[in-house]
Amino acid sequence: MTKPLRIALAGLGTVGGGVIRLLDTNGALIARRAGRPIEIVAVSARDRSKDRGVDITRFAWVDDTTALANVDADVVVELVGGSDGPALALARATLAAGKSFVTANKAMLAHHGLELARAAEAANVALKFEAAVAGGVPVIKGLREGAAANEIERVYGILNGTCNFILSKMEAEGRDFADVLAEAQALGFAEADPSFDIDGVDAAHKLSLLASLAFGTQPAFADVAASGIRHVLTADIAEAASLGYRVRLLGLAESGPAGLFQRVHPHLVPIDHPLAHVTGATNAVVAEGNFVGRLLFQGPGAGDGPTASAVVADLIDIARGEFGPAFAMPAAALIEQAPADSGERRGRAYVRFTVADRVGVLAEIAAAMRDAGVSIESLMQRGASHDEGGADGSVLVAIVTHEGPERSVAQALERLRGSQSLVGQPLWMHILA
Amino acid sequence: MTKPLRIALAGLGTVGGGVIRLLDTNGALIARRAGRPIEIVAVSARDRSKDRGVDITRFAWVDDTTALANVDADVVVELVGGSDGPALALARATLAAGKSFVTANKAMLAHHGLELARAAEAANVALKFEAAVAGGVPVIKGLREGAAANEIERVYGILNGTCNFILSKMEAEGRDFADVLAEAQALGFAEADPSFDIDGVDAAHKLSLLASLAFGTQPAFADVAASGIRHVLTADIAEAASLGYRVRLLGLAESGPAGLFQRVHPHLVPIDHPLAHVTGATNAVVAEGNFVGRLLFQGPGAGDGPTASAVVADLIDIARGEFGPAFAMPAAALIEQAPADSGERRGRAYVRFTVADRVGVLAEIAAAMRDAGVSIESLMQRGASHDEGGADGSVLVAIVTHEGPERSVAQALERLRGSQSLVGQPLWMHILA
Repeated sequence: MTKPLRIALAGLGTVGGGVIRLLDTNGALIARRAGRPIEIVAVSARDRSKDRGVDITRFAWVDDTTALANVDADVVVELVGGSDGPALALARATLAAGKSFVTANKAMLAHHGLELARAAEAANVALKFEAAVAGGVPVIKGLREGAAANEIERVYGILNGTCNFILSKMEAEGRDFADVLAEAQALGFAEADPSFDIDGVDAAHKLSLLASLAFGTQPAFADVAASGIRHVLTADIAEAASLGYRVRLLGLAESGPAGLFQRVHPHLVPIDHPLAHVTGATNAVVAEGNFVGRLLFQGPGAGDGPTASAVVADLIDIARGEFGPAFAMPAAALIEQAPADSGERRGRAYVRFTVADRVGVLAEIAAAMRDAGVSIESLMQRGASHDEGGADGSVLVAIVTHEGPERSVAQALERLRGSQSLVGQPLWMHILA
Repeated sequence: MTKPLRIALAGLGTVGGGVIRLLDTNGALIARRAGRPIEIVAVSARDRSKDRGVDITRFAWVDDTTALANVDADVVVELVGGSDGPALALARATLAAGKSFVTANKAMLAHHGLELARAAEAANVALKFEAAVAGGVPVIKGLREGAAANEIERVYGILNGTCNFILSKMEAEGRDFADVLAEAQALGFAEADPSFDIDGVDAAHKLSLLASLAFGTQPAFADVAASGIRHVLTADIAEAASLGYRVRLLGLAESGPAGLFQRVHPHLVPIDHPLAHVTGATNAVVAEGNFVGRLLFQGPGAGDGPTASAVVADLIDIARGEFGPAFAMPAAALIEQAPADSGERRGRAYVRFTVADRVGVLAEIAAAMRDAGVSIESLMQRGASHDEGGADGSVLVAIVTHEGPERSVAQALERLRGSQSLVGQPLWMHILA
């Protein structure tokens, strides 16, 4: 057996501890699969003495995270997090030192992925990040390699387990967003400050990486239009269900003559689509290729075990010598594609208004839709509870449109902005086709 | 750009034509991803003059398939089929000539995979077969690489699109097996002689490959216990539905202290399991790992486009130099594991009898179950139609057992064998836990 692949590990939180436990537990099997052992030789974290449930005294301790780049190791694994700061410093130093770099850090890659991919190529080392998207699900590999023969027409999926946990719990139990969010926080599925998750930022980070891999474009996080699930009411979920849909926060990207389109937004997913059946903190990604058709990759989107599984899968690839450019092709071959104009997109929409219960409101909404050229397929009106966003006596009006340009819906909503008839902001969700 | 990867292609049927079309259509994109062009240089098939909708005059023609091993190419792609004969001769000759070999041939690999893997290793070339299991779904890669950090506890899935098409059509439309089979044959989803598909042999071939990849064991097709869906009645599907299950033909493999267990059999799948929502000719594979949990890979299980996608994905891996041992570890490291005794397995069962409508039948069945130690959870009895397997006036009795050893159910059925009360064979389906 050849000599071990030596790992320097930065970050000993949940996932870092998981990587150590995984290598302890499955080490012999991994050595058979990788053709050589994978061994941690050095670690770095904020607090040396904290009890992590694993023995770290057998590893060299490095106080300064960035200095891990210079220990005698083959690969640095970064599980520190944060788009800049110590994680980025370590990434740059590692690649500059000619060592491979493995990370779960979607934020850093969304912002600096292209720079780091170039540095890895210049040094002829690996930059791998399977754990950065969809936790344990090998979707980076699925796009980079499994679907590589295809022109990918679109890629989309459930990229944030916290949001899916909340939405599917609201759906199953009829509870309000705030109530379920509090439970998710208590269970550790949501952060104390949940905005990265529930406002779609985390999913946007991941989507920008998937889009690059799928389309051969440079990662373009700044062009992702992201919104989240704060404004989804239990009543929206019930209306969607009555129409044959479930509400899911989807990241969706398409590339075509109109440009690169990337959006994170709550969608209505038809009940016969596999994503409609993804519940809890599970993640799932669909890639539609021009020869393969629709592929689905699904599994646990977070947690120490699944994330460690993805990190170590990257290490096994490196141990086997089976790695290439980070974004599936050389960085110089990645295209810088202009963002698409979402107004040009055609689709069906669900738009829900919370309105004052008074004469003329429906006529006002209908006129705004008509004048913007929005064709209404169905309209439901019913009384709202106090929790559902407004003064007592307010009413919910939910509209489903026929297929048409998004610009028209935007125009109708713009015209209604500030109307005395509306209580709060309307909620616009796209219907997945 | 480095020089092209040169391909010699054997077999110009549906999939062979698909590979040519795919490389014609996506060639530029593939060259960006692979770092070099992938070019077919020579082809071989039975009939040179047949119209395949693609121009083959630009490729060198080789009459003798086996002679493709000796043309000036880097990789031979085998899409001829058959477990032995020309396909096997070509595989042996190709590897002996020190060239890489890509195939969609599950039957050949199930029977000769270990020999061919050894030959590929000896020659330090690739032996790849993504297209052999689940068509376009990159599940070979998912197990070999994506889940490689895990001890896989079990792997199972819907491996035969024809059977899933038939079962989900029976379910959706309440039609009989024979009726739906005839439609599947008319649509080209089933062969004129459908027994390879509907009796579980095709799924067994695939399962033996998945098991080897998942568990690090030698492929052991001979140890797969395979049965199919011929004897599933519409009434069974309806009973299963009333209990909260859908009927799916599953291949399932587990490895543990009891040995290697491999079985293809109709199962009752709980409605909240993702496999319950897989309909039509789609394939889906679940791998359960000790760190990652449950991964699902799903997509089109057959057809020229999906299969070509998988074949070319293998070629891209080879063009990139990203390949290693065929079965995830060196052939010498694969364990020869003894088959597990299915009698020792514990689970819940669905057993359906078609019985004569006369006094004492239920008592006879109940006594056989009791004496074998089978604990009955529920029992349903209702009149059978003529199509449902018997003389007019026969009755269906469906039993769901509590969890217990399979041996007990087998003993009860053995005792009832030949009983005058039974019309035809009982159907035993396992309930997926």
